[in-house]
Amino acid sequence: MSDVPACPGFRFAGIVAGIKSNGRPDLGLVVADEDVPTAAVFTRNQVRAAPVTLSEANVASGVARAIIVNSGNANAATGDKGEADAAAMVDGCAAAVGCRPKRVLVASTGIIGRPLPIERVTEATPGLFAAARPEGLDDFASAIMTTDRFEKRSLHVFAAGGKTEARVVGVAKGAGMIAPNMATTLAFLFTDAAVDKRYLRKVLKEEIDTTFNCISVDGDTSTNDSVFLMASGAAKNKPIDGDGGKGERFRAAVRSVLDELSRAIVRDGEGAQHVVTLAVQGAPSNEDARRVARAIAHSPLCKTAFFGADPNWGRILSTIGNCGLDIDHGKIDLAFEDVEIVRRSVGLGDEAEKGAHEVMSRAEYTIRIHLHGGRGQAQHTTCDLGHDYVKLNADYRS
Amino acid sequence: MSDVPACPGFRFAGIVAGIKSNGRPDLGLVVADEDVPTAAVFTRNQVRAAPVTLSEANVASGVARAIIVNSGNANAATGDKGEADAAAMVDGCAAAVGCRPKRVLVASTGIIGRPLPIERVTEATPGLFAAARPEGLDDFASAIMTTDRFEKRSLHVFAAGGKTEARVVGVAKGAGMIAPNMATTLAFLFTDAAVDKRYLRKVLKEEIDTTFNCISVDGDTSTNDSVFLMASGAAKNKPIDGDGGKGERFRAAVRSVLDELSRAIVRDGEGAQHVVTLAVQGAPSNEDARRVARAIAHSPLCKTAFFGADPNWGRILSTIGNCGLDIDHGKIDLAFEDVEIVRRSVGLGDEAEKGAHEVMSRAEYTIRIHLHGGRGQAQHTTCDLGHDYVKLNADYRS
Repeated sequence: MSDVPACPGFRFAGIVAGIKSNGRPDLGLVVADEDVPTAAVFTRNQVRAAPVTLSEANVASGVARAIIVNSGNANAATGDKGEADAAAMVDGCAAAVGCRPKRVLVASTGIIGRPLPIERVTEATPGLFAAARPEGLDDFASAIMTTDRFEKRSLHVFAAGGKTEARVVGVAKGAGMIAPNMATTLAFLFTDAAVDKRYLRKVLKEEIDTTFNCISVDGDTSTNDSVFLMASGAAKNKPIDGDGGKGERFRAAVRSVLDELSRAIVRDGEGAQHVVTLAVQGAPSNEDARRVARAIAHSPLCKTAFFGADPNWGRILSTIGNCGLDIDHGKIDLAFEDVEIVRRSVGLGDEAEKGAHEVMSRAEYTIRIHLHGGRGQAQHTTCDLGHDYVKLNADYRS
Repeated sequence: MSDVPACPGFRFAGIVAGIKSNGRPDLGLVVADEDVPTAAVFTRNQVRAAPVTLSEANVASGVARAIIVNSGNANAATGDKGEADAAAMVDGCAAAVGCRPKRVLVASTGIIGRPLPIERVTEATPGLFAAARPEGLDDFASAIMTTDRFEKRSLHVFAAGGKTEARVVGVAKGAGMIAPNMATTLAFLFTDAAVDKRYLRKVLKEEIDTTFNCISVDGDTSTNDSVFLMASGAAKNKPIDGDGGKGERFRAAVRSVLDELSRAIVRDGEGAQHVVTLAVQGAPSNEDARRVARAIAHSPLCKTAFFGADPNWGRILSTIGNCGLDIDHGKIDLAFEDVEIVRRSVGLGDEAEKGAHEVMSRAEYTIRIHLHGGRGQAQHTTCDLGHDYVKLNADYRS
């Protein structure tokens, strides 16, 4: 992919600035040819890293020129110096690019609570800008990684009106279970389609809800999670500004990219051997269904059973019972893929459990839960909790 | 303890009925000399085992004669047969004791979703009753254990009015992390004091809130959790019926017994190397403080850091940030015992972390969190999450 332009209208770079102690790339840049419509969503954690606060303020205008990203240090819980450092990153980038600082967004990922070596970042920034090229997405993708075992990338092409073909390209970092990055998720989506900035924001906000907001590894939301979407307009289509026709196709492309990236993050949880989707239906409301799916996805007792491929449906029923739903808890059905294991809250016996155990030995599978208490439904994707999770999280900093 | 009466007015027994496959005691009984004031609190899980439902109905009168308990099978998620089996346990016990079935309570702990071998229970019940004696608390304590590594017992003596001395004795089972029992907690408290049944219920309900409801191992509430309190009146004191004087002393004795039993359960989590108390102050309300303490106690990222004695305060701050509190998240102070490590949400550096690491190497310690956002406070006791938790929970049934 590295010798073709990744997405017309954008240039990318990734270099070694010396933030990471292992000498790997740790400073990335994406720069658009001009100020372009840009949307972003950020962590709901109330303890927010300095770059999150600053980017949120700058993206409020709906347009941006560039995003500068460092890995190796989250610039979180760093107090006043952290805020000054995030501003210095933005100012340095704006000076190199030649745009207003307000048009620059910033993201950081890595260890929490240590001051960012800001001089290394600002000194490296002119060279970073000089390295930016349309074919540079690979370099950018390397520079945002922390403990990722593989790059996460996704591309979907869609008809943007008339004969115009446009694309949505995405790269993400995040290896759920690993702690050095506090499970931070960063994702960057680019499209060459022309999209109205208000519609761009609407699509990102709505599609994130069924993708990135429906995955979890350990239930924690990091101080730095951010997802960005920039639209260069290089495809020269008539701007997409609402649902229907090309709007729907654009939305579907964004959703597919977000879905693929978010699943790749779950799959990359080191120590994770199983990607498990909880599909809940029959809840009083979608919100209730979401609560059940999330509760199971976050239960250590359920997740260790996933690790052991143990069809321990008693734990799932007990977890549902803790969700406070107004349903008849004697009517719950459970199936592992198409293997029914519980009907009306009573187990179907050893044969059923044997079949479920086989399903649970797969790398990816779905647990289907029917509550028979309404029409609400939801999905949530998670992974198992095994020995490597403990090993990696017990003492990552030593 | 086995050759002295445990608590005047009560007889105890524990025998092998053949429910457990390993031949250990699995059926226990406590029987009062007459119908006596009795209170109980039960799991808030909406998926409730049959014995919980039945005991709750029977204890509503505020008096009881006996409690029959089995281990090895939780009689949970067992449908109509489960309800019939719980009723059969009660009926069999009432027949042996010679009382109304309404005066018998029942508890079960063990595996979920397997039918209880009820014939073994009912056949063994007459022999169980015949074995009951005032000195039998040891036998009873053995019969309620599942994966407990040690018995949990506590005794506090208090002045019940005039020169009368009375006691509160408690036994409990539960080894938090272990799954065969779904982390089920059962506790039985006995006093020889005369206590009004309404006041007995009030004391149990209120004191459970700061003891058993403030411990957790993995955040799950089981389908079977139950705590019972019976008052024989054998001490012949003037009945205790309200706060003030002997009421306060009785309440303090109950609180001490509940506190010791609940901490013993956390300490017995197999694989648990550290008992960690989260002490939160400065929250907008006590409820907010409780939410923060519970969130940290349930966070896999925090608990694996406890396991590794890693003073990873970034995870604690991030967890607080996910609690949705209306506070200034830039003003949080953190200390491990008396070692300050974070002031105004900024880390105090390597020396502080070294000191915190030493505290975290202890078997028990307290993490102090000051939110500087009000006067609310709360405590919650939990343990670390280590390799043994994964091992024991991944496949306990094979």
